[in-house]
Amino acid sequence: MLKLHIGNKNYSSWSMRPWVLMTQAGIPFEEVLLRFDSFDPDSQFKRAAEALSPSGTVPVLVDGEQVVWDTLAIAETLAERFPECRLWPADATERALARSATAMMHAGFGALRQHFPMNIEAHLPEVGARVLREQPAVVADLERLLSLWERLLGRHQGPLLFDHFSIADAFYAPVVMRLVTYAVPVTPRVQQYIDAVRALPGVSQWISGALAEHDFRPFEEPYRDAQDQA
Amino acid sequence: MLKLHIGNKNYSSWSMRPWVLMTQAGIPFEEVLLRFDSFDPDSQFKRAAEALSPSGTVPVLVDGEQVVWDTLAIAETLAERFPECRLWPADATERALARSATAMMHAGFGALRQHFPMNIEAHLPEVGARVLREQPAVVADLERLLSLWERLLGRHQGPLLFDHFSIADAFYAPVVMRLVTYAVPVTPRVQQYIDAVRALPGVSQWISGALAEHDFRPFEEPYRDAQDQA
Ligand SMILES: N[C@@H](CCC(=O)N[C@@H](CS)C(=O)NCC(=O)O)C(=O)O
Ligand SMILES: N[C@@H](CCC(=O)N[C@@H](CS)C(=O)NCC(=O)O)C(=O)O
Repeated sequence: MLKLHIGNKNYSSWSMRPWVLMTQAGIPFEEVLLRFDSFDPDSQFKRAAEALSPSGTVPVLVDGEQVVWDTLAIAETLAERFPECRLWPADATERALARSATAMMHAGFGALRQHFPMNIEAHLPEVGARVLREQPAVVADLERLLSLWERLLGRHQGPLLFDHFSIADAFYAPVVMRLVTYAVPVTPRVQQYIDAVRALPGVSQWISGALAEHDFRPFEEPYRDAQDQA
Repeated sequence: MLKLHIGNKNYSSWSMRPWVLMTQAGIPFEEVLLRFDSFDPDSQFKRAAEALSPSGTVPVLVDGEQVVWDTLAIAETLAERFPECRLWPADATERALARSATAMMHAGFGALRQHFPMNIEAHLPEVGARVLREQPAVVADLERLLSLWERLLGRHQGPLLFDHFSIADAFYAPVVMRLVTYAVPVTPRVQQYIDAVRALPGVSQWISGALAEHDFRPFEEPYRDAQDQA
């Protein structure tokens, strides 16, 4: 049985990607939670993560001897191992495009990720509006992101980035969560995409898990105090 | 014919990866240089890069209709299209490991990349020593990097990360260049790896190209003035 080691569902955007991917694609796995206490070297989380892989981060996929750390390596490994799940588009040109959009997310959008950390249970529209006024790098990231989505969505009828659910949607799912938390204004087409992603069973199950956690972690909360927690 | 659009060879660490990969593997391609004038939105470089792909960055691989931006998407696309080149290890567990090490580079080592920008023709040992004294995040990145390399190199006889040249070596080649420029102290095993990477024909041809450029770009030079240039 595949084992997927993840962090807190409310906060761990990287963990969300392969979890959503596998759940949505129907790939069976056992979930192992490494609860975030802190990221200090002697925290329980870091000691467990360092013991698992050379990166000391989550997610980590373990399959017997095989240890795959880093979300993009996990995604490619699963795509190869479960071809029947069509985790990438079947057409070579579409696949190259999906890989480009996914890898761009993996290495990019740094300002967006820094100023809009994932926090599924929070609703922070005022913070969102303030960040958009004060952080031009976030605005630039959003412009690039939203124009990429528009471009991909405008090419076909379906509500997702490619003609069926793919790794690209799993990679952008945490970004969708951020747009909702920080109430970023979007076009109707992008709003449809946001709604479609949240309605995917794999995503809505992750959201339910996040909402059930009630595990406020101060180092993941630049914008809230413990007492603000829902 | 495949076309690979790249930036300046002395500076563009991302461009170096697919160029080295294709050259070393013997995949024929035409090189198109988008010379860095600046990264301002109205620079010639940015206008050309924005016209090529949604990321506005180099490298970009163009194959007829197919446009692949982002190094990791380029690498996976090439691995799939040229299976005879064995760009990933043939064994599934080795391949998962190579993908993990590669993806970790793609999204990580931010402090190392920021404080030690690639600059092949420069020799900056004093800068290197100062950064190591003043930037604990760079030291932490280096510890993680070097222990990963030691671990991979210690598993077999050959001088490279896996039993033959792979995408992982191409991804770490610009890091090798940085360790040399900033004279970072390393163990004998890592020094052997550095020497082996620099001796690869694909890498040494890129280095020759970089040394022939003489194209000092102030915005890529936090540590030198134009007159220091060799
Ligand atoms: N590039 C990695 C990033 C993983 C990552 O940074 N995970 C966070 C949790 S969302 C983590 O484990 N952080 C611990 C740390 O940075 O020490 C991936 O794609 O898996
Ligand atoms: N994740 C991208 C990064 C590419 C990248 O940042 N390239 C630099 C040159 S080395 C660039 O084009 N910078 C222009 C800019 O940031 O505006 C990749 O892997 O290709």
